[in-house]
Amino acid sequence: MIKQEKREYQKIAYLGIPGSFAFSAAKKFFGKGIKLISSQSISEVFEKVKRRNCSFGVVPLENSTTGSIIQTYDNLISSKLSIVSEVILKIHHHLLTGPGAAIKKIKLCYSHPQAISQCDSFFKIHPWIKPVFVSNTASAAKLVSENKKSTEAAIAGSDAGKIYKLAMQAKNIEDNKRNFTRFVIISRNKKKIGDKISLVFSIKHIPGSLFKVLKPYAKYGLNLTKIESRPVFGKPWEYIFFLDFEIGEKEKEVKKVIKEMKKVTQWISLLGKYKKGKIYET
Amino acid sequence: MIKQEKREYQKIAYLGIPGSFAFSAAKKFFGKGIKLISSQSISEVFEKVKRRNCSFGVVPLENSTTGSIIQTYDNLISSKLSIVSEVILKIHHHLLTGPGAAIKKIKLCYSHPQAISQCDSFFKIHPWIKPVFVSNTASAAKLVSENKKSTEAAIAGSDAGKIYKLAMQAKNIEDNKRNFTRFVIISRNKKKIGDKISLVFSIKHIPGSLFKVLKPYAKYGLNLTKIESRPVFGKPWEYIFFLDFEIGEKEKEVKKVIKEMKKVTQWISLLGKYKKGKIYET
Repeated sequence: MIKQEKREYQKIAYLGIPGSFAFSAAKKFFGKGIKLISSQSISEVFEKVKRRNCSFGVVPLENSTTGSIIQTYDNLISSKLSIVSEVILKIHHHLLTGPGAAIKKIKLCYSHPQAISQCDSFFKIHPWIKPVFVSNTASAAKLVSENKKSTEAAIAGSDAGKIYKLAMQAKNIEDNKRNFTRFVIISRNKKKIGDKISLVFSIKHIPGSLFKVLKPYAKYGLNLTKIESRPVFGKPWEYIFFLDFEIGEKEKEVKKVIKEMKKVTQWISLLGKYKKGKIYET
Repeated sequence: MIKQEKREYQKIAYLGIPGSFAFSAAKKFFGKGIKLISSQSISEVFEKVKRRNCSFGVVPLENSTTGSIIQTYDNLISSKLSIVSEVILKIHHHLLTGPGAAIKKIKLCYSHPQAISQCDSFFKIHPWIKPVFVSNTASAAKLVSENKKSTEAAIAGSDAGKIYKLAMQAKNIEDNKRNFTRFVIISRNKKKIGDKISLVFSIKHIPGSLFKVLKPYAKYGLNLTKIESRPVFGKPWEYIFFLDFEIGEKEKEVKKVIKEMKKVTQWISLLGKYKKGKIYET
């Protein structure tokens, strides 16, 4: 664990503005005594950590509904920064309004298109509320707070509501009650301890090649928690894979697995070794 | 192949409005002599085919950048409709305007947030153009066409430009030149011939379980073209997998593979057997 006295001066780059889900993930993970630095893009988070402007970065890696976030994988591969932790947020959406608003009088509701589509039933029951798309949920909350109109609302998380001093008109209005986003904490320094490893590799696209890659996991009894192939369309023989596995009690076998994988892959890159993350409510 | 005389009366449901990428995929695949039926959501496309309002449906299954589209997988699993073909589109984005527009005088540009973020360099070089988010690229083009303002533009595909009679102010303004979307054609009737199979399965989350599932593919020399695990967060022992494989010359081995997979999976569902799709420009 990081000591409190060190934490006081630590700068953490995160995706979005105050109230974004990456902001919430950073807060849940690091607690108090840190300085959170807003970033416009995933690449900007990586840049800030790479250039030593920040000690750590917080970016989304995958969502249970929309899948892996390739920009994060791309940056992990090209930047040589490492995953040192993970944080999982259960995503809830709330209808947030300024003072004096009543749900029957709301005309416009700002949010990210994905959040709006995840609250489809809410808009069907409240057909007088017109959804308006903005770039992210936190900026939707900010906009409602700045506009000060009782006819406007935002769909965002509870942290955004607190930050922009909005009231929660309707709670948990999301259709999918099992929507989770997995965030990773990135750093310039690799971690040597942990119970989980993330890696990326590519293999020749021939029958049995993936089977060979997975053989050492079966042999040594290591548990895969994620595997995903991404085609390079237009290059039908090129595939890249994202893989996570749990170390469990098999610390000694990890080196053997990686060594054996190296023999049957075209390239392989370790993205980090880290402690399995907790799930937090939002 | 479907005969021309039958085609004349065939209704095809697709995701979006005229000019959407699913619309383009449907046109590329079916050609002329069909009636394309616009649908507001992936579920609506499935409903129209299920209720026999349409013979076929066209929906996106995965994108090379953003990954698998879980809504399509969910509907494939729950609806019992089958994939009967695939169509791959190379996604290009263009700046489209009405008559009298000049790039230096454009103030607003409508598009889907994903399309806008995919044209990041364009907006950096043209900082006077303010991006405005709408729900999809085709409706952005429609809006510009209806508003008739020379200061407005849309980012959309070339089919949207043709349909809404807009001029192509700037061509292929996307940053990622390797952005592909794979669409599937869905039907009530399974296809018996094809060179590719898509399936979904779940396995117990124990070491070696995925290895066992992939064993028959290595044994019979069948080539996987996709594998993706999706965690059911909150249920750490539940995993669902999306898998595609090519049949090649191994038609006889397919039944054996499925039979052997059934022994080592919790459940398995065949999504369809179909001919490998062509890649089309947009």
